Amino acid sequence: MPDTPQSVTAAVLVIGDEILSGRTKDKNIGYIADYLTDLGIDLCEVRIVPDIAAEIIAAVNALRERYTYVFTTGGIGPTHDDITADCIAEAFGVAIDEDPRAIALMLERYRPEDLNAARRRMARIPAGAELIENAVSKAPGFQLGNVVVMAGVPSVMHAMLDAVAPRLKTGAKVMMETIEAADLPEGIYAAPLSAIASSHGGVSIGSYPSFQNGVFHNRIVVRGKVDGQVAAAVADVRAMLLGLAGQRVRPQPPLPEK
Amino acid sequence: MPDTPQSVTAAVLVIGDEILSGRTKDKNIGYIADYLTDLGIDLCEVRIVPDIAAEIIAAVNALRERYTYVFTTGGIGPTHDDITADCIAEAFGVAIDEDPRAIALMLERYRPEDLNAARRRMARIPAGAELIENAVSKAPGFQLGNVVVMAGVPSVMHAMLDAVAPRLKTGAKVMMETIEAADLPEGIYAAPLSAIASSHGGVSIGSYPSFQNGVFHNRIVVRGKVDGQVAAAVADVRAMLLGLAGQRVRPQPPLPEK
Repeated sequence: MPDTPQSVTAAVLVIGDEILSGRTKDKNIGYIADYLTDLGIDLCEVRIVPDIAAEIIAAVNALRERYTYVFTTGGIGPTHDDITADCIAEAFGVAIDEDPRAIALMLERYRPEDLNAARRRMARIPAGAELIENAVSKAPGFQLGNVVVMAGVPSVMHAMLDAVAPRLKTGAKVMMETIEAADLPEGIYAAPLSAIASSHGGVSIGSYPSFQNGVFHNRIVVRGKVDGQVAAAVADVRAMLLGLAGQRVRPQPPLPEK
Repeated sequence: MPDTPQSVTAAVLVIGDEILSGRTKDKNIGYIADYLTDLGIDLCEVRIVPDIAAEIIAAVNALRERYTYVFTTGGIGPTHDDITADCIAEAFGVAIDEDPRAIALMLERYRPEDLNAARRRMARIPAGAELIENAVSKAPGFQLGNVVVMAGVPSVMHAMLDAVAPRLKTGAKVMMETIEAADLPEGIYAAPLSAIASSHGGVSIGSYPSFQNGVFHNRIVVRGKVDGQVAAAVADVRAMLLGLAGQRVRPQPPLPEK
Protein backbone atom coordinates (compact mmCIF):
# COMPACT_ATOMS: atom_id res chain seq x y z
CA MET A 1 0.00 0.00 0.00
CA PRO A 2 1.67 3.27 -0.98
CA ASP A 3 1.74 6.03 1.61
CA THR A 4 -0.74 8.84 1.20
CA PRO A 5 -0.36 12.14 3.06
CA GLN A 6 -2.71 10.71 5.68
CA SER A 7 -1.26 7.26 5.81
CA VAL A 8 1.84 5.93 7.59
CA THR A 9 2.18 2.18 7.14
CA ALA A 10 3.97 -0.62 8.95
CA ALA A 11 4.78 -4.30 8.92
CA VAL A 12 5.69 -6.51 11.86
CA LEU A 13 8.31 -9.24 11.48
CA VAL A 14 8.33 -11.82 14.28
CA ILE A 15 11.59 -13.79 14.33
CA GLY A 16 11.67 -17.11 16.13
CA ASP A 17 11.46 -20.88 15.74
CA GLU A 18 9.64 -21.03 19.06
CA ILE A 19 6.55 -19.31 17.64
CA LEU A 20 6.45 -21.52 14.52
CA SER A 21 6.79 -24.72 16.55
CA GLY A 22 3.86 -23.66 18.74
CA ARG A 23 5.99 -23.88 21.88
CA THR A 24 5.63 -20.15 22.54
CA LYS A 25 2.34 -18.41 21.77
CA ASP A 26 2.98 -14.96 20.32
CA LYS A 27 1.74 -12.09 22.45
CA ASN A 28 3.51 -9.30 20.59
CA ILE A 29 1.55 -9.03 17.34
CA GLY A 30 -1.73 -8.00 18.97
CA TYR A 31 0.06 -5.61 21.32
CA ILE A 32 1.93 -3.88 18.49
CA ALA A 33 -1.24 -3.79 16.34
CA ASP A 34 -3.13 -1.95 19.09
CA TYR A 35 -0.16 0.34 19.79
CA LEU A 36 0.31 1.36 16.15
CA THR A 37 -3.43 1.86 15.62
CA ASP A 38 -3.44 4.21 18.62
CA LEU A 39 -0.47 6.12 17.19
CA GLY A 40 -2.04 6.53 13.75
CA ILE A 41 0.20 4.01 11.97
CA ASP A 42 -1.57 1.43 9.77
CA LEU A 43 -0.32 -2.11 10.29
CA CYS A 44 -0.57 -3.67 6.80
CA GLU A 45 1.24 -7.00 7.06
CA VAL A 46 2.77 -9.41 9.57
CA ARG A 47 5.25 -12.20 8.92
CA ILE A 48 6.67 -14.83 11.24
CA VAL A 49 9.95 -16.41 10.13
CA PRO A 50 12.35 -18.93 11.69
CA ASP A 51 15.86 -18.27 13.06
CA ILE A 52 17.41 -18.72 9.60
CA ALA A 53 19.53 -15.83 8.28
CA ALA A 54 18.41 -16.05 4.64
CA GLU A 55 14.74 -16.02 5.67
CA ILE A 56 15.15 -13.05 8.00
CA ILE A 57 17.14 -11.03 5.46
CA ALA A 58 14.68 -11.70 2.63
CA ALA A 59 11.69 -10.74 4.79
CA VAL A 60 13.36 -7.55 6.09
CA ASN A 61 14.21 -6.43 2.56
CA ALA A 62 10.76 -7.25 1.17
CA LEU A 63 8.98 -5.40 3.96
CA ARG A 64 11.21 -2.35 4.34
CA GLU A 65 10.73 -1.45 0.69
CA ARG A 66 6.95 -1.58 0.96
CA TYR A 67 6.07 0.10 4.25
CA THR A 68 6.97 3.25 6.15
CA TYR A 69 8.24 1.16 9.08
CA VAL A 70 9.12 -2.44 9.86
CA PHE A 71 9.05 -3.55 13.51
CA THR A 72 10.94 -6.75 14.31
CA THR A 73 10.71 -8.75 17.53
CA GLY A 74 13.08 -11.44 18.75
CA GLY A 75 16.62 -12.65 18.30
CA ILE A 76 18.68 -9.90 19.97
CA GLY A 77 19.85 -11.73 23.10
CA PRO A 78 23.30 -13.14 23.94
CA THR A 79 22.89 -16.75 22.74
CA HIS A 80 23.96 -18.36 19.45
CA ASP A 81 20.38 -18.40 18.13
CA ASP A 82 20.17 -14.59 18.39
CA ILE A 83 21.08 -13.54 14.87
CA THR A 84 18.74 -10.62 14.17
CA ALA A 85 21.28 -7.76 14.41
CA ASP A 86 23.69 -9.48 12.01
CA CYS A 87 20.83 -10.17 9.59
CA ILE A 88 19.69 -6.54 9.64
CA ALA A 89 23.26 -5.39 8.89
CA GLU A 90 23.43 -7.84 6.00
CA ALA A 91 20.00 -6.80 4.70
CA PHE A 92 21.19 -3.18 4.56
CA GLY A 93 24.70 -4.06 3.40
CA VAL A 94 26.38 -2.24 6.29
CA ALA A 95 29.04 -3.27 8.80
CA ILE A 96 28.23 -4.45 12.31
CA ASP A 97 30.44 -4.13 15.35
CA GLU A 98 30.42 -3.63 19.07
CA ASP A 99 28.96 -0.18 19.69
CA PRO A 100 30.54 1.89 22.50
CA ARG A 101 27.16 3.55 23.19
CA ALA A 102 25.57 0.13 23.73
CA ILE A 103 28.47 -0.99 25.94
CA ALA A 104 28.00 2.17 28.02
CA LEU A 105 24.30 1.39 28.48
CA MET A 106 25.05 -2.19 29.47
CA LEU A 107 27.62 -1.04 32.03
CA GLU A 108 24.71 0.55 33.88
CA ARG A 109 23.66 -3.00 34.67
CA TYR A 110 26.78 -5.18 34.48
CA ARG A 111 30.08 -4.82 36.28
CA PRO A 112 32.87 -4.58 33.69
CA GLU A 113 34.17 -8.05 34.68
CA ASP A 114 30.69 -9.53 34.05
CA LEU A 115 30.45 -8.13 30.53
CA ASN A 116 31.66 -11.34 28.93
CA ALA A 117 31.86 -12.13 25.21
CA ALA A 118 28.27 -13.44 25.04
CA ARG A 119 26.86 -10.32 26.67
CA ARG A 120 29.00 -8.09 24.45
CA ARG A 121 27.21 -9.70 21.48
CA MET A 122 24.15 -7.73 22.62
CA ALA A 123 26.16 -4.55 21.95
CA ARG A 124 26.71 -5.47 18.29
CA ILE A 125 24.84 -2.75 16.40
CA PRO A 126 24.78 -2.18 12.61
CA ALA A 127 26.67 0.93 11.44
CA GLY A 128 24.43 3.99 11.25
CA ALA A 129 21.72 2.70 13.61
CA GLU A 130 20.19 4.73 16.41
CA LEU A 131 19.89 2.92 19.73
CA ILE A 132 16.53 2.28 21.39
CA GLU A 133 16.65 2.37 25.16
CA ASN A 134 15.66 -0.74 27.13
CA ALA A 135 14.45 0.38 30.53
CA VAL A 136 14.01 -3.23 31.71
CA SER A 137 17.38 -4.90 31.11
CA LYS A 138 19.56 -2.23 29.44
CA ALA A 139 20.76 -4.13 26.31
CA PRO A 140 19.33 -1.79 23.66
CA GLY A 141 17.25 -2.29 20.55
CA PHE A 142 18.00 -0.14 17.52
CA GLN A 143 16.54 1.58 14.49
CA LEU A 144 18.33 1.38 11.14
CA GLY A 145 16.62 3.29 8.36
CA ASN A 146 12.95 2.43 8.67
CA VAL A 147 13.52 -0.84 10.53
CA VAL A 148 12.91 -0.88 14.29
CA VAL A 149 14.56 -3.86 16.00
CA MET A 150 13.13 -4.91 19.35
CA ALA A 151 13.38 -7.78 21.85
CA GLY A 152 10.97 -10.71 21.82
CA VAL A 153 10.30 -10.82 25.58
CA PRO A 154 7.02 -8.89 25.82
CA SER A 155 7.90 -6.67 28.79
CA VAL A 156 11.19 -5.64 27.17
CA MET A 157 9.52 -5.09 23.79
CA HIS A 158 6.91 -2.86 25.45
CA ALA A 159 9.67 -0.70 26.97
CA MET A 160 11.43 -0.40 23.60
CA LEU A 161 8.21 0.52 21.80
CA ASP A 162 7.59 3.25 24.38
CA ALA A 163 11.15 4.49 23.84
CA VAL A 164 10.93 4.64 20.04
CA ALA A 165 7.33 5.88 19.70
CA PRO A 166 8.10 9.61 20.13
CA ARG A 167 10.44 9.47 17.10
CA LEU A 168 7.95 7.87 14.74
CA LYS A 169 6.10 9.67 12.00
CA THR A 170 2.37 9.16 12.46
CA GLY A 171 -0.68 9.65 10.27
CA ALA A 172 -4.38 10.09 10.68
CA LYS A 173 -5.80 7.72 13.25
CA VAL A 174 -8.27 5.07 12.21
CA MET A 175 -11.53 5.37 14.05
CA MET A 176 -13.31 2.14 14.67
CA GLU A 177 -16.88 1.64 15.79
CA THR A 178 -18.39 -1.73 16.67
CA ILE A 179 -22.09 -2.39 16.23
CA GLU A 180 -23.61 -5.44 17.90
CA ALA A 181 -25.62 -7.63 15.57
CA ALA A 182 -25.96 -10.16 18.41
CA ASP A 183 -27.62 -13.35 17.15
CA LEU A 184 -28.94 -11.84 13.92
CA PRO A 185 -27.33 -14.16 11.32
CA GLU A 186 -24.79 -12.73 8.88
CA GLY A 187 -26.71 -14.34 6.00
CA ILE A 188 -29.71 -12.13 6.84
CA TYR A 189 -27.86 -8.81 6.85
CA ALA A 190 -25.12 -9.56 4.29
CA ALA A 191 -26.91 -8.08 1.26
CA PRO A 192 -27.98 -4.76 2.85
CA LEU A 193 -24.57 -4.47 4.55
CA SER A 194 -22.84 -4.87 1.20
CA ALA A 195 -25.03 -2.09 -0.23
CA ILE A 196 -24.08 0.18 2.69
CA ALA A 197 -20.38 -0.64 2.22
CA SER A 198 -20.62 0.25 -1.49
CA SER A 199 -22.37 3.54 -0.87
CA HIS A 200 -19.99 4.85 1.82
CA GLY A 201 -16.60 5.97 0.56
CA GLY A 202 -13.62 6.27 2.90
CA VAL A 203 -14.74 3.56 5.31
CA SER A 204 -14.25 -0.19 5.45
CA ILE A 205 -16.97 -2.34 6.95
CA GLY A 206 -16.36 -5.84 8.29
CA SER A 207 -18.61 -8.47 9.80
CA TYR A 208 -17.14 -10.71 12.51
CA PRO A 209 -18.77 -13.74 14.07
CA SER A 210 -17.39 -15.08 17.34
CA PHE A 211 -18.20 -17.88 19.73
CA GLN A 212 -17.97 -17.28 23.46
CA ASN A 213 -19.28 -19.35 26.36
CA GLY A 214 -21.32 -21.51 24.01
CA VAL A 215 -23.05 -18.56 22.31
CA PHE A 216 -22.47 -17.25 18.77
CA HIS A 217 -22.38 -13.52 18.33
CA ASN A 218 -22.00 -11.27 15.28
CA ARG A 219 -20.43 -7.83 15.28
CA ILE A 220 -20.10 -5.28 12.51
CA VAL A 221 -17.10 -2.96 12.58
CA VAL A 222 -16.87 0.33 10.66
CA ARG A 223 -13.37 1.77 10.23
CA GLY A 224 -12.25 5.03 8.69
CA LYS A 225 -10.13 8.12 9.16
CA VAL A 226 -12.82 10.77 8.74
CA ASP A 227 -15.19 11.12 11.66
CA GLY A 228 -18.25 12.15 9.67
CA GLN A 229 -17.82 9.28 7.21
CA VAL A 230 -17.61 6.71 10.01
CA ALA A 231 -20.61 8.20 11.80
CA ALA A 232 -22.72 8.21 8.63
CA ALA A 233 -21.94 4.57 7.85
CA VAL A 234 -22.58 3.54 11.45
CA ALA A 235 -25.98 5.26 11.39
CA ASP A 236 -26.93 3.39 8.22
CA VAL A 237 -25.80 0.05 9.67
CA ARG A 238 -27.76 0.62 12.87
CA ALA A 239 -30.90 1.58 10.94
CA MET A 240 -30.53 -1.49 8.74
CA LEU A 241 -30.15 -3.84 11.72
CA LEU A 242 -33.14 -2.30 13.51
CA GLY A 243 -35.26 -2.75 10.40
CA LEU A 244 -34.23 -6.38 10.04
CA ALA A 245 -34.77 -7.17 13.72
CA GLY A 246 -38.30 -5.79 13.40
CA GLN A 247 -39.01 -7.91 10.31
CA ARG A 248 -37.61 -11.10 11.73
CA VAL A 249 -40.44 -13.61 11.90
CA ARG A 250 -38.66 -16.94 12.20
CA PRO A 251 -35.65 -16.80 14.50
CA GLN A 252 -32.56 -18.55 13.17
CA PRO A 253 -30.46 -20.79 15.37
CA PRO A 254 -27.52 -18.67 16.57
CA LEU A 255 -24.84 -20.51 14.61
CA PRO A 256 -21.82 -18.97 12.90
CA GLU A 257 -21.85 -18.44 9.16
CA LYS A 258 -18.09 -18.66 8.64
CA MET B 1 13.04 -24.71 2.78
CA PRO B 2 12.91 -27.54 0.25
CA ASP B 3 11.23 -30.75 1.25
CA THR B 4 13.43 -33.65 2.25
CA PRO B 5 12.09 -37.22 2.51
CA GLN B 6 11.61 -36.56 6.23
CA SER B 7 10.22 -33.09 5.93
CA VAL B 8 6.74 -31.85 5.05
CA THR B 9 6.48 -28.07 5.27
CA ALA B 10 3.69 -25.55 5.67
CA ALA B 11 2.82 -21.88 5.82
CA VAL B 12 -0.18 -20.25 7.48
CA LEU B 13 -1.89 -17.27 5.86
CA VAL B 14 -4.21 -15.33 8.15
CA ILE B 15 -6.60 -13.12 6.18
CA GLY B 16 -8.30 -10.25 7.95
CA ASP B 17 -8.22 -6.53 8.63
CA GLU B 18 -9.49 -7.22 12.14
CA ILE B 19 -6.21 -8.90 13.18
CA LEU B 20 -4.04 -6.12 11.71
CA SER B 21 -6.08 -3.38 13.41
CA GLY B 22 -5.66 -5.15 16.75
CA ARG B 23 -9.42 -5.38 17.22
CA THR B 24 -9.31 -9.19 17.15
CA LYS B 25 -6.40 -11.04 18.74
CA ASP B 26 -5.43 -14.02 16.63
CA LYS B 27 -5.91 -17.38 18.31
CA ASN B 28 -5.46 -19.53 15.23
CA ILE B 29 -1.71 -19.32 14.57
CA GLY B 30 -0.64 -20.95 17.82
CA TYR B 31 -3.35 -23.61 17.50
CA ILE B 32 -2.34 -24.53 13.95
CA ALA B 33 1.36 -24.47 14.91
CA ASP B 34 0.75 -27.01 17.69
CA TYR B 35 -1.52 -29.10 15.47
CA LEU B 36 0.96 -29.29 12.58
CA THR B 37 3.89 -30.03 14.91
CA ASP B 38 1.90 -32.94 16.36
CA LEU B 39 1.15 -34.23 12.85
CA GLY B 40 4.78 -34.07 11.71
CA ILE B 41 4.39 -31.03 9.45
CA ASP B 42 6.94 -28.23 9.89
CA LEU B 43 5.40 -24.76 10.02
CA CYS B 44 8.01 -22.56 8.30
CA GLU B 45 6.30 -19.20 7.81
CA VAL B 46 3.20 -17.23 8.78
CA ARG B 47 1.77 -14.15 7.10
CA ILE B 48 -1.14 -11.93 8.08
CA VAL B 49 -2.63 -9.85 5.26
CA PRO B 50 -5.62 -7.50 4.98
CA ASP B 51 -8.91 -8.11 3.12
CA ILE B 52 -7.42 -6.80 -0.15
CA ALA B 53 -7.57 -9.13 -3.15
CA ALA B 54 -4.15 -8.28 -4.60
CA GLU B 55 -2.48 -8.87 -1.22
CA ILE B 56 -4.20 -12.20 -0.65
CA ILE B 57 -3.45 -13.46 -4.17
CA ALA B 58 0.22 -12.45 -4.01
CA ALA B 59 0.69 -14.11 -0.62
CA VAL B 60 -1.08 -17.33 -1.69
CA ASN B 61 1.07 -17.61 -4.78
CA ALA B 62 4.33 -16.85 -2.95
CA LEU B 63 3.62 -19.39 -0.23
CA ARG B 64 2.14 -22.24 -2.26
CA GLU B 65 5.24 -22.41 -4.42
CA ARG B 66 7.54 -22.69 -1.43
CA TYR B 67 5.86 -25.08 0.98
CA THR B 68 4.14 -28.45 0.87
CA TYR B 69 0.92 -26.90 2.23
CA VAL B 70 -0.59 -23.48 2.81
CA PHE B 71 -3.35 -23.16 5.42
CA THR B 72 -5.50 -20.04 5.19
CA THR B 73 -7.91 -18.78 7.83
CA GLY B 74 -10.65 -16.19 7.41
CA GLY B 75 -12.78 -14.58 4.74
CA ILE B 76 -15.12 -17.41 3.72
CA GLY B 77 -18.41 -16.17 5.23
CA PRO B 78 -21.45 -14.66 3.50
CA THR B 79 -20.61 -10.93 3.79
CA HIS B 80 -19.04 -8.58 1.23
CA ASP B 81 -15.70 -8.60 3.04
CA ASP B 82 -15.39 -12.39 2.59
CA ILE B 83 -13.29 -12.59 -0.58
CA THR B 84 -10.94 -15.50 0.12
CA ALA B 85 -12.54 -18.11 -2.20
CA ASP B 86 -12.52 -15.73 -5.16
CA CYS B 87 -8.89 -14.81 -4.45
CA ILE B 88 -7.83 -18.46 -4.32
CA ALA B 89 -9.53 -19.10 -7.69
CA GLU B 90 -7.74 -16.09 -9.14
CA ALA B 91 -4.39 -17.16 -7.66
CA PHE B 92 -4.74 -20.56 -9.36
CA GLY B 93 -6.30 -19.12 -12.53
CA VAL B 94 -9.39 -21.33 -12.30
CA ALA B 95 -13.11 -20.59 -12.46
CA ILE B 96 -15.29 -20.25 -9.38
CA ASP B 97 -18.98 -20.98 -9.15
CA GLU B 98 -21.68 -22.26 -6.86
CA ASP B 99 -20.84 -25.87 -6.08
CA PRO B 100 -23.78 -28.32 -5.87
CA ARG B 101 -21.89 -30.39 -3.28
CA ALA B 102 -21.55 -27.32 -1.06
CA ILE B 103 -25.22 -26.42 -1.57
CA ALA B 104 -26.17 -29.98 -0.55
CA LEU B 105 -24.13 -29.66 2.66
CA MET B 106 -25.68 -26.30 3.47
CA LEU B 107 -29.19 -27.72 2.95
CA GLU B 108 -28.47 -29.94 5.97
CA ARG B 109 -28.69 -26.72 7.99
CA TYR B 110 -30.82 -24.27 6.01
CA ARG B 111 -34.31 -24.69 4.63
CA PRO B 112 -34.25 -24.11 0.86
CA GLU B 113 -36.16 -20.84 1.24
CA ASP B 114 -33.52 -19.59 3.74
CA LEU B 115 -30.62 -20.23 1.39
CA ASN B 116 -30.54 -16.65 0.12
CA ALA B 117 -27.99 -15.10 -2.23
CA ALA B 118 -25.60 -14.13 0.59
CA ARG B 119 -25.56 -17.64 2.03
CA ARG B 120 -25.15 -19.15 -1.44
CA ARG B 121 -21.90 -17.12 -1.68
CA MET B 122 -20.52 -19.57 0.90
CA ALA B 123 -21.08 -22.35 -1.65
CA ARG B 124 -18.82 -20.64 -4.23
CA ILE B 125 -15.91 -23.08 -4.60
CA PRO B 126 -13.02 -22.85 -7.10
CA ALA B 127 -13.09 -25.46 -9.87
CA GLY B 128 -11.18 -28.60 -8.96
CA ALA B 129 -11.25 -28.09 -5.19
CA GLU B 130 -12.13 -30.79 -2.69
CA LEU B 131 -14.55 -29.75 0.03
CA ILE B 132 -13.61 -29.76 3.72
CA GLU B 133 -16.48 -30.62 6.01
CA ASN B 134 -17.57 -28.10 8.63
CA ALA B 135 -19.19 -30.01 11.48
CA VAL B 136 -20.11 -26.78 13.31
CA SER B 137 -22.05 -24.72 10.77
CA LYS B 138 -22.03 -26.77 7.52
CA ALA B 139 -20.68 -24.16 5.03
CA PRO B 140 -17.54 -26.02 3.92
CA GLY B 141 -13.89 -25.10 3.59
CA PHE B 142 -11.95 -26.48 0.66
CA GLN B 143 -8.57 -27.66 -0.56
CA LEU B 144 -7.29 -26.61 -3.97
CA GLY B 145 -3.93 -28.07 -4.90
CA ASN B 146 -1.78 -27.62 -1.78
CA VAL B 147 -3.85 -24.77 -0.34
CA VAL B 148 -6.24 -25.56 2.51
CA VAL B 149 -8.88 -22.85 3.00
CA MET B 150 -10.52 -22.66 6.41
CA ALA B 151 -12.80 -20.37 8.41
CA GLY B 152 -11.45 -17.72 10.78
CA VAL B 153 -13.80 -18.46 13.70
CA PRO B 154 -11.61 -20.69 15.89
CA SER B 155 -14.20 -23.40 16.68
CA VAL B 156 -15.09 -23.76 12.99
CA MET B 157 -11.42 -23.74 11.96
CA HIS B 158 -10.70 -26.52 14.49
CA ALA B 159 -13.48 -28.66 12.97
CA MET B 160 -12.11 -28.09 9.46
CA LEU B 161 -8.55 -28.92 10.49
CA ASP B 162 -9.79 -32.16 12.04
CA ALA B 163 -11.65 -32.94 8.81
CA VAL B 164 -8.67 -32.31 6.51
CA ALA B 165 -5.90 -33.78 8.71
CA PRO B 166 -6.39 -37.43 7.65
CA ARG B 167 -5.70 -36.48 3.99
CA LEU B 168 -2.46 -34.63 4.66
CA LYS B 169 0.98 -36.00 3.92
CA THR B 170 3.06 -35.94 7.10
CA GLY B 171 6.76 -36.26 7.86
CA ALA B 172 8.95 -37.13 10.78
CA LYS B 173 7.75 -35.47 13.96
CA VAL B 174 9.91 -32.90 15.67
CA MET B 175 10.73 -33.89 19.21
CA MET B 176 11.15 -31.03 21.59
CA GLU B 177 12.66 -31.13 25.06
CA THR B 178 12.71 -28.17 27.44
CA ILE B 179 15.45 -27.78 30.03
CA GLU B 180 14.94 -25.29 32.85
CA ALA B 181 17.80 -22.86 33.32
CA ALA B 182 15.69 -21.01 35.89
CA ASP B 183 17.43 -17.79 36.98
CA LEU B 184 20.85 -18.73 35.58
CA PRO B 185 21.48 -15.79 33.20
CA GLU B 186 21.73 -16.43 29.46
CA GLY B 187 24.98 -14.47 29.37
CA ILE B 188 26.57 -17.07 31.67
CA TYR B 189 25.63 -20.13 29.63
CA ALA B 190 25.63 -18.62 26.11
CA ALA B 191 29.22 -19.62 25.21
CA PRO B 192 29.04 -23.27 26.33
CA LEU B 193 25.54 -23.58 24.83
CA SER B 194 26.85 -22.34 21.50
CA ALA B 195 29.62 -24.96 21.64
CA ILE B 196 27.04 -27.69 22.33
CA ALA B 197 24.85 -26.44 19.46
CA SER B 198 27.83 -26.56 17.07
CA SER B 199 28.84 -30.07 18.10
CA HIS B 200 25.38 -31.67 17.79
CA GLY B 201 24.17 -32.20 14.24
CA GLY B 202 20.48 -32.67 13.46
CA VAL B 203 19.19 -30.65 16.37
CA SER B 204 18.42 -26.98 16.88
CA ILE B 205 18.92 -25.45 20.29
CA GLY B 206 17.19 -22.25 21.42
CA SER B 207 17.32 -20.20 24.60
CA TYR B 208 14.14 -18.44 25.69
CA PRO B 209 13.77 -15.96 28.52
CA SER B 210 10.30 -15.22 29.86
CA PHE B 211 8.79 -13.06 32.56
CA GLN B 212 5.92 -14.41 34.64
CA ASN B 213 4.44 -13.15 37.88
CA GLY B 214 7.32 -10.75 38.37
CA VAL B 215 10.02 -13.41 37.96
CA PHE B 216 12.40 -13.88 35.01
CA HIS B 217 13.03 -17.39 33.88
CA ASN B 218 15.25 -18.90 31.18
CA ARG B 219 14.53 -22.12 29.31
CA ILE B 220 16.60 -23.99 26.77
CA VAL B 221 14.77 -26.00 24.11
CA VAL B 222 16.33 -28.79 22.05
CA ARG B 223 14.47 -29.76 18.86
CA GLY B 224 15.18 -32.53 16.39
CA LYS B 225 13.69 -35.43 14.48
CA VAL B 226 16.02 -38.20 15.66
CA ASP B 227 15.45 -39.36 19.22
CA GLY B 228 19.08 -40.24 20.00
CA GLN B 229 20.35 -36.90 18.71
CA VAL B 230 17.90 -34.95 20.86
CA ALA B 231 18.70 -37.05 23.93
CA ALA B 232 22.46 -36.61 23.48
CA ALA B 233 22.19 -32.83 23.15
CA VAL B 234 19.84 -32.61 26.13
CA ALA B 235 22.31 -34.60 28.26
CA ASP B 236 25.12 -32.20 27.34
CA VAL B 237 22.98 -29.15 28.10
CA ARG B 238 21.96 -30.54 31.49
CA ALA B 239 25.56 -31.37 32.39
CA MET B 240 26.69 -27.89 31.32
CA LEU B 241 23.99 -26.18 33.42
CA LEU B 242 24.79 -28.31 36.47
CA GLY B 243 28.47 -27.44 36.16
CA LEU B 244 27.71 -23.73 35.90
CA ALA B 245 25.29 -23.77 38.82
CA GLY B 246 28.01 -25.38 40.96
CA GLN B 247 30.57 -22.74 39.94
CA ARG B 248 28.27 -19.81 40.45
CA VAL B 249 29.80 -17.65 43.16
CA ARG B 250 28.09 -14.30 42.69
CA PRO B 251 24.40 -14.64 41.89
CA GLN B 252 23.20 -12.37 39.09
CA PRO B 253 19.98 -10.39 39.39
CA PRO B 254 17.29 -12.42 37.60
CA LEU B 255 16.74 -9.98 34.71
CA PRO B 256 16.10 -10.88 31.08
CA GLU B 257 18.92 -10.63 28.60
CA LYS B 258 16.78 -9.99 25.51
